[in-house]
Amino acid sequence: MNFQTAKNFFCLEGIDGCGKSTQLKKIALDLENAGYEVLCIREPGGVEISEKIRQLLLDVKYKGIMCDKTELLLYNAARSQLIAEKIAPALAKGKVVLADRFAWSTLAYQGYGRGIDPQTILELSQIACGEYTPELTIVLDLSVEESRRRQAGEGRTPDRLESEAADFFERVRNGYQQMAKNFPACVSLIYAEDSVENVYTQIKQRIFEKLKR
Amino acid sequence: MNFQTAKNFFCLEGIDGCGKSTQLKKIALDLENAGYEVLCIREPGGVEISEKIRQLLLDVKYKGIMCDKTELLLYNAARSQLIAEKIAPALAKGKVVLADRFAWSTLAYQGYGRGIDPQTILELSQIACGEYTPELTIVLDLSVEESRRRQAGEGRTPDRLESEAADFFERVRNGYQQMAKNFPACVSLIYAEDSVENVYTQIKQRIFEKLKR
Repeated sequence: MNFQTAKNFFCLEGIDGCGKSTQLKKIALDLENAGYEVLCIREPGGVEISEKIRQLLLDVKYKGIMCDKTELLLYNAARSQLIAEKIAPALAKGKVVLADRFAWSTLAYQGYGRGIDPQTILELSQIACGEYTPELTIVLDLSVEESRRRQAGEGRTPDRLESEAADFFERVRNGYQQMAKNFPACVSLIYAEDSVENVYTQIKQRIFEKLKR
Repeated sequence: MNFQTAKNFFCLEGIDGCGKSTQLKKIALDLENAGYEVLCIREPGGVEISEKIRQLLLDVKYKGIMCDKTELLLYNAARSQLIAEKIAPALAKGKVVLADRFAWSTLAYQGYGRGIDPQTILELSQIACGEYTPELTIVLDLSVEESRRRQAGEGRTPDRLESEAADFFERVRNGYQQMAKNFPACVSLIYAEDSVENVYTQIKQRIFEKLKR
């Protein structure tokens, strides 16, 4: 499948606990210090309509009730709204957009995780995103065991997706690894069980390299 | 485009004020009196998750903010959930399903009304609905003028979709007429400015004819 990507649009992906949020803050700060205007977005959510959709998606009471297709369509609905209201305008103004999750999450969780046909997911992404696919997505690769350990340390109650069985997250992790193999031009893997600083050095290098082009 | 339809699944369509709800109640009663078990559903909505999506879709404050693609994806999300929770189980038990709007509404409003590519809409419907397309959809055809007159009579405040300009509804009406021409096997038009009883006689005849096969 061929798809267009958008210049100055970057994304961090990976299973929960992989350090996406921490790393996103660091790279945002360094980009701003380097003179770039930065927009950070969170998937799913980021604008009022998408946040409402996010509430539906993450509500624990719908576990086992919300069907796979509905979940898939809702993620794409949240995404298309975020593109229309924030991503497209920011890129048009020359800003750098940093996403905490984007379309590859859907392929990882709904495709590899739940077994929905990857081709259907990519077709839907094309409808929802058009050319607004990040030029570089960095997957922070973490074992499911380490992911659980890190989250347990936070003492939070798991939401609907987080409370899925461990084998689900194994499939998701494997999915991310496959994407990096299948789409090397725009998906890149970093081993995330290393120190925050070592992981960050690699993220910074890969993103600044793209920006210099 | 070829698509499968589901036996014992019927739908009433048309612009607001066309009499869908009234006619649906009448045919449901007659079907029950004839010994059929009947499930009536409303689009978008009908189950908790879909009703939540419906609230988002009809909220006046999102007029001019919600983008066309988001709207399209949300309608399909509401629909796939309704199919999973109610329509598929009911048809599997041999019930007759009567829908107040279904996938053709999306083609009429988002396709013909808003100008989203009809092919994209049909592809999305295929993803969301699969084989759960009504074997017969009856469009109650009404002029936009008469629609407005009937709604003004009710004294309600128009919701986001109802407050669209009149030319939007002209395109929607025209869209329904096109569908009846393009898909005569499963979409049938009835002139709805006639009396309730005359319109009903035709609806009853067409539905019972299908059930007898």
